[in-house]
Amino acid sequence: MKQPGCELCEAEGGRLVLSNEFLRVVLVDDPHFPGFARVIWHDHVREMSDLAAADQQRLMQAVFAVERAQRAVLAPDKVNLASLGNVVAHLHWHVIPRFADDSHFPQPVWGTRLRERSEEALESRRGQLDELRRRIAAEVARVARP
Amino acid sequence: MKQPGCELCEAEGGRLVLSNEFLRVVLVDDPHFPGFARVIWHDHVREMSDLAAADQQRLMQAVFAVERAQRAVLAPDKVNLASLGNVVAHLHWHVIPRFADDSHFPQPVWGTRLRERSEEALESRRGQLDELRRRIAAEVARVARP
Repeated sequence: MKQPGCELCEAEGGRLVLSNEFLRVVLVDDPHFPGFARVIWHDHVREMSDLAAADQQRLMQAVFAVERAQRAVLAPDKVNLASLGNVVAHLHWHVIPRFADDSHFPQPVWGTRLRERSEEALESRRGQLDELRRRIAAEVARVARP
Repeated sequence: MKQPGCELCEAEGGRLVLSNEFLRVVLVDDPHFPGFARVIWHDHVREMSDLAAADQQRLMQAVFAVERAQRAVLAPDKVNLASLGNVVAHLHWHVIPRFADDSHFPQPVWGTRLRERSEEALESRRGQLDELRRRIAAEVARVARP
């Protein structure tokens, strides 16, 4: 079920980490938030409450698997989870590792920028992204059910 | 398991709609976003991945029940779901009915204000809050499991 003109029906929505029958996980190429991931439902569905209960659970288990991977690899101070879809109303979850010294903390990433994060800290996080990709793939595979 | 000094251990966190063994639902008193609800886990837990699978499911089913109630009563253009916790790291979900003419749409409520919403539109939504409270209580009761 693809919707013509929908950005997430027509493109991956980020750098693909894994894709299964139901959903995919991508890393967002955001220079300020390395490790920012999205879990995107393949079908063009608008709200969580439009999904059947089993699919809601599939999607959330993948979101929590990504969270576990981010915690294991990056040890963030907090993980932020959000399904907004005001711009692209195709079900997708933002899974964002947050650090006390990141550019917006404790603001949401959509809020006010409070500081510049050091290029050194960002570069060190970026060096962990290959490991993060592997860990996300492993954690999601562990909970994926046919 | 209460944590001294935690805002959500020491106060309801909004106007109480319902409370069960595990969680409570409150309406946030935000003049710009009538119907803005929070689902708050009673125990002081930091991240979704710190909860056992059955509790993750309990919490998400309550979140989706609130979403269903908001859709049934308010017919929003989109529902926004978010668990951030950068300021108060005690597990809670924001469930926010969004309207194309609200003050921030399509920005997140934490983003840039784009317009003033008419007092008339806000007042009309506020008139639906008693019905929303009843509907939230009914929808959450329907999915609550001991």
